[in-house]
Amino acid sequence: MFETAELGNAVAKTDYDARAPGLRVDLINAQYDLRSADFPVVVLLTGDDRAGVNEVLNVLHQWMDTRFVQTIAFGARSEEERERPRFWRYWKALPRKGQLALFVGDWSTSLLVDHLSGGIDDAEFARGLDHVERYEHALVDDGALLLKFWLHLPKRELKRRLKQGRRNDAAALRIDPVDRRLYQNYDELLPHAERLIRKTSSAVAPWQIVEGTDSQYRNLTVAEGILAAVNARIGARAAAPAAAAAIPDLDPQTTVLGSIDLQSRVSYDEYKATVALLQARLRELTARARRKGVATVLVFEGWDAAGKGGAIRRITNALDARDYRTVPISAPTEEEKAHHYLWRFWRQLPRDRQIVIFDRSWYGRVLVERVEGLAQEGEWRRAFAEINDFEDQLVEHGIALGKFWLHIDAGEQLRRFQEREKTPFKKYKIGEDDYRNRGKWDAYVAAIDEMVARTSSELAPWTLVPANDKRFARITILRTVCDALKKSLKRV
Amino acid sequence: MFETAELGNAVAKTDYDARAPGLRVDLINAQYDLRSADFPVVVLLTGDDRAGVNEVLNVLHQWMDTRFVQTIAFGARSEEERERPRFWRYWKALPRKGQLALFVGDWSTSLLVDHLSGGIDDAEFARGLDHVERYEHALVDDGALLLKFWLHLPKRELKRRLKQGRRNDAAALRIDPVDRRLYQNYDELLPHAERLIRKTSSAVAPWQIVEGTDSQYRNLTVAEGILAAVNARIGARAAAPAAAAAIPDLDPQTTVLGSIDLQSRVSYDEYKATVALLQARLRELTARARRKGVATVLVFEGWDAAGKGGAIRRITNALDARDYRTVPISAPTEEEKAHHYLWRFWRQLPRDRQIVIFDRSWYGRVLVERVEGLAQEGEWRRAFAEINDFEDQLVEHGIALGKFWLHIDAGEQLRRFQEREKTPFKKYKIGEDDYRNRGKWDAYVAAIDEMVARTSSELAPWTLVPANDKRFARITILRTVCDALKKSLKRV
Repeated sequence: MFETAELGNAVAKTDYDARAPGLRVDLINAQYDLRSADFPVVVLLTGDDRAGVNEVLNVLHQWMDTRFVQTIAFGARSEEERERPRFWRYWKALPRKGQLALFVGDWSTSLLVDHLSGGIDDAEFARGLDHVERYEHALVDDGALLLKFWLHLPKRELKRRLKQGRRNDAAALRIDPVDRRLYQNYDELLPHAERLIRKTSSAVAPWQIVEGTDSQYRNLTVAEGILAAVNARIGARAAAPAAAAAIPDLDPQTTVLGSIDLQSRVSYDEYKATVALLQARLRELTARARRKGVATVLVFEGWDAAGKGGAIRRITNALDARDYRTVPISAPTEEEKAHHYLWRFWRQLPRDRQIVIFDRSWYGRVLVERVEGLAQEGEWRRAFAEINDFEDQLVEHGIALGKFWLHIDAGEQLRRFQEREKTPFKKYKIGEDDYRNRGKWDAYVAAIDEMVARTSSELAPWTLVPANDKRFARITILRTVCDALKKSLKRV
Repeated sequence: MFETAELGNAVAKTDYDARAPGLRVDLINAQYDLRSADFPVVVLLTGDDRAGVNEVLNVLHQWMDTRFVQTIAFGARSEEERERPRFWRYWKALPRKGQLALFVGDWSTSLLVDHLSGGIDDAEFARGLDHVERYEHALVDDGALLLKFWLHLPKRELKRRLKQGRRNDAAALRIDPVDRRLYQNYDELLPHAERLIRKTSSAVAPWQIVEGTDSQYRNLTVAEGILAAVNARIGARAAAPAAAAAIPDLDPQTTVLGSIDLQSRVSYDEYKATVALLQARLRELTARARRKGVATVLVFEGWDAAGKGGAIRRITNALDARDYRTVPISAPTEEEKAHHYLWRFWRQLPRDRQIVIFDRSWYGRVLVERVEGLAQEGEWRRAFAEINDFEDQLVEHGIALGKFWLHIDAGEQLRRFQEREKTPFKKYKIGEDDYRNRGKWDAYVAAIDEMVARTSSELAPWTLVPANDKRFARITILRTVCDALKKSLKRV
């Protein structure tokens, strides 16, 4: 979930200085337009990056017309507030139509803090998340524009800053005891934050996770996010319906796929030996899974020609034919189109002890169907929450779940396409479509980024596999499957 | 919640025989139209009235073209089904676009049965309800028409049938051990059923509670419900947007208000003595509430001139002026209109120890705003779930909550209006509007019926007060407030 915010996203000083003045003008103009609009704007600013939240707040105050920004920092609840239901203070603070409010330490944050400090137990936390969902739905249903930014600091960066703080007196002043405690409890915090983000990321009010490593990147991302959302909403009401969300120009360094090191290589000898070892281990683990009744679902996604088929065969070679089933997914049939898009996947679930391998999967909804315009925006946006609930049910049922994205770069793909054309028994695998799809590479990269950010979680993580070297990819996958199975067997 | 299904609703044999043939033709025509429609229809048929569910199913099979009805009765999960996540069998069974499926023993029922039999604990039940909500949302978002009928048998009727079953050999055959066990656990079952119905009644897929006392009423209600929903959906797609839901012709005997006995009278002497007694008890209870920090919220709704003001004064007379606040609610101000409609009520919540009395309330949304067209249909339909979540938070916070509807008949209201015109100091209370509103009496009766069905629960029940006799009304209210406070004090 935090993968997309641990990439070292950064904006150069010169770039920042060039973009800031125009952004300020645009923000103030948007504020002016907003005043006569018939909806309120609520911006939640929170996250594990506490210093970042304060800095962004200061920058927004510099950039916007503060007369028309209502900023409310909710701290620990006062006595007066504790004597009312939790949401009382948030309801009271809501902006009216035409106003914009920045909320720091919002309802979600407060719930998380209370849970981590032991103030409320797991059941109360769950009930609270339920109220959060209903509250946000009520606001959005009533027309509010709700924007939620979660500022995230990768652990290594937090560590670096704490260290720096100790050395440097000036900076040290800014590290308060809470930051230090946060670092100590960082590993405990994140799973809870993840649960909160997943559960309260609906199609109408998704969390946007922003990396806080570089302050310039962070400031621009939040400010531009607010600007774009307000303008889109005003525009949508004033003029024609908004066009489909444009795919932004992507700096490959700032996407999850861009962060994958494609240089990894394995020699033939090492590959041979390791595969044999891992296959033996997998055989043994699946035998135990069969005895214990643990089922397995493996999902393979990846670029065309990334080597999904070969990787799947290296797994099935280790299995007993009675134990597994491979399900290749292509365009839905007439019958499948007449049902909810998840219908065909539910039908294919394994029973206990079985292994089902999906060669492409339900993620088509947020990949090919999104990029090719086969699903409407509302449909693929909804799909993130629907997929999360689907996979939650698999994991709750005890199924071992592995999800793989096989990544190659565009050059490698072209090389493989050309090779296929030369190889008689592979020629059927390549057509004009394949070449045409390459034109949408960037759109796919953006879609994959959002897919990973919204559907990768501790219990159902994505494994991003460097696959320029097929051997390395196969070993990575075999090892991950073994680890996932082992983990699931432990939970039985 | 079940109030509206315990009224002895019945349809005479002659009436039934007159309506059935036309209904059959209409149902078959609707089925025919549906076949080329681009949405599926899923009808859930369940409830505490198990025999009723089977009988309705048989009648629907007689009345509809069974070639185009898919009926699936889900029983205990088979081994194959237990080896998959709970929702697997429901996903598999979903009808395709243009098809209609009748589900008996659906996902909600199965969850409830498992919970009651101890198969799943409270946390799992809560998680299951969450999945139900998301599942139904996914179906509806995808375009499905989802109709949910809960057949309810009042306890006295169930008891009567069990007795009859013992006497009469022929009927006795139909009482199986499950029915007998149901009766034994009836009181335990209903609160759980209520929780399920509240939690899973969204604006897009509300439960419709149908009384099963009279089989003719029950059959017609379900069949006409299906027919109307399918036709409305086909019509809405084919032609102009559907008109606002028509208010049906109401038989006063079949509404919650119609069931109130307005004959109750109290003599002046008895009234004097009882009021004094109850006020003393209330004084003592509120003093204890103050010491224990328990807050109270009282809601008064009722017909114009039903005597809300007088009843409220009989309560406040018993209170210390520092302890309570009365909040009269009229049309929202400009400022209030610029916020979510619940905003102004949240602001008025009492802190611990305080008592707040709302003279009219948030229920205006589903009463006057609904009937007068001041809220759009989507707005007031959403409001039921929003109000339930709001009141859940009050109760979870420990607030004692009382909700009163003061009921008088139309004749009594007219008499009081005329009296007011004659009394100088009451004359200001009466205007043309009041007379005009009387024209919408039936529309209000229908709105009140739905309000009680959707927002009355064990923790936040409506008290329907017969108020033709003001003395009787005041005593009823004072006594109910005392009982509610006592109950809340016990929970502290």
